[in-house]
Amino acid sequence: MASFGGHAIPGGFFLLFGLWLTVKYGLNHYWRRNKARGRPEAPPFFKKTNYIEGGLAGFASFVGIMVEQFVPSGPHAHLYDTEHNSWVKLMNWQHSTMYLFFGIYGIVLLVSTASRLVPVGVDRLALSVALFVEGFLFYYHVHSRPPLDAHIHTLLLVAVFSGSASNMLEVFMRDNIILELFGSCMFILQGTWFYQIGFVLYPLSGPEWDLSQHDNVMFVTMCFCWHLAVAMLLVACISSTVWWTLNRMSGRGGDVEIGMRKTSNNNSQKALLEASDEE
Amino acid sequence: MASFGGHAIPGGFFLLFGLWLTVKYGLNHYWRRNKARGRPEAPPFFKKTNYIEGGLAGFASFVGIMVEQFVPSGPHAHLYDTEHNSWVKLMNWQHSTMYLFFGIYGIVLLVSTASRLVPVGVDRLALSVALFVEGFLFYYHVHSRPPLDAHIHTLLLVAVFSGSASNMLEVFMRDNIILELFGSCMFILQGTWFYQIGFVLYPLSGPEWDLSQHDNVMFVTMCFCWHLAVAMLLVACISSTVWWTLNRMSGRGGDVEIGMRKTSNNNSQKALLEASDEE
Amino acid sequence: MASFGGHAIPGGFFLLFGLWLTVKYGLNHYWRRNKARGRPEAPPFFKKTNYIEGGLAGFASFVGIMVEQFVPSGPHAHLYDTEHNSWVKLMNWQHSTMYLFFGIYGIVLLVSTASRLVPVGVDRLALSVALFVEGFLFYYHVHSRPPLDAHIHTLLLVAVFSGSASNMLEVFMRDNIILELFGSCMFILQGTWFYQIGFVLYPLSGPEWDLSQHDNVMFVTMCFCWHLAVAMLLVACISSTVWWTLNRMSGRGGDVEIGMRKTSNNNSQKALLEASDEE
Amino acid sequence: MASFGGHAIPGGFFLLFGLWLTVKYGLNHYWRRNKARGRPEAPPFFKKTNYIEGGLAGFASFVGIMVEQFVPSGPHAHLYDTEHNSWVKLMNWQHSTMYLFFGIYGIVLLVSTASRLVPVGVDRLALSVALFVEGFLFYYHVHSRPPLDAHIHTLLLVAVFSGSASNMLEVFMRDNIILELFGSCMFILQGTWFYQIGFVLYPLSGPEWDLSQHDNVMFVTMCFCWHLAVAMLLVACISSTVWWTLNRMSGRGGDVEIGMRKTSNNNSQKALLEASDEE
Repeated sequence: MASFGGHAIPGGFFLLFGLWLTVKYGLNHYWRRNKARGRPEAPPFFKKTNYIEGGLAGFASFVGIMVEQFVPSGPHAHLYDTEHNSWVKLMNWQHSTMYLFFGIYGIVLLVSTASRLVPVGVDRLALSVALFVEGFLFYYHVHSRPPLDAHIHTLLLVAVFSGSASNMLEVFMRDNIILELFGSCMFILQGTWFYQIGFVLYPLSGPEWDLSQHDNVMFVTMCFCWHLAVAMLLVACISSTVWWTLNRMSGRGGDVEIGMRKTSNNNSQKALLEASDEE
Repeated sequence: MASFGGHAIPGGFFLLFGLWLTVKYGLNHYWRRNKARGRPEAPPFFKKTNYIEGGLAGFASFVGIMVEQFVPSGPHAHLYDTEHNSWVKLMNWQHSTMYLFFGIYGIVLLVSTASRLVPVGVDRLALSVALFVEGFLFYYHVHSRPPLDAHIHTLLLVAVFSGSASNMLEVFMRDNIILELFGSCMFILQGTWFYQIGFVLYPLSGPEWDLSQHDNVMFVTMCFCWHLAVAMLLVACISSTVWWTLNRMSGRGGDVEIGMRKTSNNNSQKALLEASDEE
Repeated sequence: MASFGGHAIPGGFFLLFGLWLTVKYGLNHYWRRNKARGRPEAPPFFKKTNYIEGGLAGFASFVGIMVEQFVPSGPHAHLYDTEHNSWVKLMNWQHSTMYLFFGIYGIVLLVSTASRLVPVGVDRLALSVALFVEGFLFYYHVHSRPPLDAHIHTLLLVAVFSGSASNMLEVFMRDNIILELFGSCMFILQGTWFYQIGFVLYPLSGPEWDLSQHDNVMFVTMCFCWHLAVAMLLVACISSTVWWTLNRMSGRGGDVEIGMRKTSNNNSQKALLEASDEE
Repeated sequence: MASFGGHAIPGGFFLLFGLWLTVKYGLNHYWRRNKARGRPEAPPFFKKTNYIEGGLAGFASFVGIMVEQFVPSGPHAHLYDTEHNSWVKLMNWQHSTMYLFFGIYGIVLLVSTASRLVPVGVDRLALSVALFVEGFLFYYHVHSRPPLDAHIHTLLLVAVFSGSASNMLEVFMRDNIILELFGSCMFILQGTWFYQIGFVLYPLSGPEWDLSQHDNVMFVTMCFCWHLAVAMLLVACISSTVWWTLNRMSGRGGDVEIGMRKTSNNNSQKALLEASDEE
């Protein structure tokens, strides 16, 4: 992962995931607000998107683990080298562990969508735990690095732990659109910040950054706030676009139900497109 | 900002904002308690004050950003000096970033007042984020300064983060007068404390403060508690004056509604006066 | 306060306050549980005890401030000595500040008992703030002392901040007997721990404690847990005694109301006795 | 406790307790979901299991304290050695203190099961306090040890304090199956992690671990996440097995009641078996 690409891939993944969640929660919210006029149960479209999301999360995590393990420089599933008495490629193992927990989220989402017996909210707990584990491993990752490197990763943790806390709260406060969009916002922030880390530590062009200069640390802190502003703007734009589109469709089609179904088709195609980009 | 004035301006701003919020929440609370006797919907007066508050917050932030950028010693919208390979006036950029988020609060308040589609509580989330960003930037601002300077800014963070937490809670617990007044109190505390920082670091008269003396640190800690006591007293006095005035007016006028409307006029004039002071 | 007595006086105060709160909350809880059989409004006895509690808290704080200021070695209301360019007896000023906030609690309790207009829960907020300020001032008090001295005061902060948090929660969750008794328990713990600090730092007899020995730090940590166990036992015994007594009295008298009134008399005498001990 | 066995015994205890809680909460949840079809009150089976759990917790704690005190190398109830002016075997005293609080939990569970007068949730508070005290004592236990030793105990604290927080939340949010199972999961994690600590610090075979190597610290952090994944898997499997078994039994027997009673017998035998293993 010590390259620009190594930061851009997870960054892109989190960015797309955040965008997708924004769209999904926007749809959910629209449906909840107009429920009185529609049917009482969630339309099958929501179940379908959850299956797709869960399946993709599980699949992407599996691919991620395989890649981390079996790239030429990877550990090839060896954990301890008895010859040299040392651990083999712990970095790759740590990344595999992070993927594992996002994979668990995928499976939990699948199971909790399929069965009514799974308590409501377990999927959010799994996502919260996945983010916590990511932050937890990063936290001990960062020690004894140059100041700027440590700082830029610490800022990442702000997004990761905020997202974890917000998802944990969602276990207890269901269907709160503000919490849901805040969680999505944190995923988008995490995604764009991964790109920023890539640009700073492995600049594609121009001079290297001085990793111990205090001014760079100050700039990076401020830059994080700009990313936050952009993420908030993105979430606001996307969710209002979703709302506005749904409203116009249901108005034109004369029926919320039909509007819902039309949107479903459009969006599931969009989700599939996004998902195929993600890999 | 390295002057008395540079601390007095934001201090005055926060102080007035806190006082205004106290009045506003006092009015809101009165109306909620007497709702049964009045009409069920919030009177248009509340909408109007929100428009004014949002507009002023947005406008003041815009002015603040412009001033920080285009004062003679400012960065004039230049971020990086490629000649000297250094960042240009990061301090001014940081202050602009802080203003930006208060500007976002203003816009969110405008939009959420105008449209019923915006989920209730988004304005408080925006205010909470604005305070969080302020505290966040200050936190990394303070490192490697003399003890008293660092300490006096750390105490400011207590007020800032308490205000942020209290506003975050308001997202989930609406119309809780205690939380609302606690948030106002933190703004007033922040305001008066900015003045205190100005007096300590840039004394208008008398000898300079010894920034490394332990006794000064101890005094300043205690002084912060006195500011808190004064802020609590102010909030208590203002909100009970508002309550008492409304009560007398509605009693004399024989009708809560009429009382409300009368107060509205008085208060919107007062709000305008305050707002014009703020700039 | 640098003496055994200086720790025993506040310790006794907090201990008695904790015991009193346990009795009060026990009575409250009994009344709430049997309300269906009794009258719907709180009996005047509760109002009376609140007046006494508030009045005593205010009065004791006033006396405390006067003593701290005007003992022979006190600052006699002088804050800054312009001759020597130094602060006068900051320790006494800090203690006065702590008393001030407990005095504010007393006044808030009086006002909120007297008027229905004060929002429910403000008294708990005032108590929470008083505890927070106490902990806050202690926190910056403790720096640069020998290890055992610093540690034993840090442990005090655990009780103080837990009490503050529990009282803060009570603002939002009213009439939760577990929270109420937990708060009382933290006051008792604080009280007994003040005595422990006195015994350790200013032993009445026997050898001085070695303030830098690690074993002493370990023992003191464990001892704090024993104090916690004793405080929990005390709260359990007192509240069940209160319950059992009330139950027997109301059973014998054949009427909850009469039982309540009888107890009131006994308890207000008891409260007065306790209060006179407190000073 | 400075041996493999000294870590395996508490580890086994916590592991079994976590597994038992998972089964118990699974049964509880099944009963709550099917209550409409059954009788309104909790079946006596739940009371019986609580008596057994409370009794065993109290008994095991008593045995634990006796063992810690009266093993040949123990303090034999002597706290201070006036001859050498030193504390006697503080380690054993600390462990006794931890046991004491789990014993208090046992007694509280017994009393709150026996009497309806004890407020609902006090048993969870007692468990939360017991975990807090455990973590609290460990926290000051860990200072000034080699890096790996300190780190591996710090990770234990993550499980301990998460469990404490989750049980504290249960005081206020009753019958939330996700919280309940999360708490059980933290007990299982704590249990397996005690074994891991034993394996690392006192390896049964193979070379000693280098306690200051950074790679070992990194591996151990990752390993903690694997333990978490296994604990989550265990909780998921056990609770779904419990559900599935109850469902099949009640289906076959044609009556939820009868199924409940049958399971009760099976499970109380199982609980007894587990309990006898625990000692």
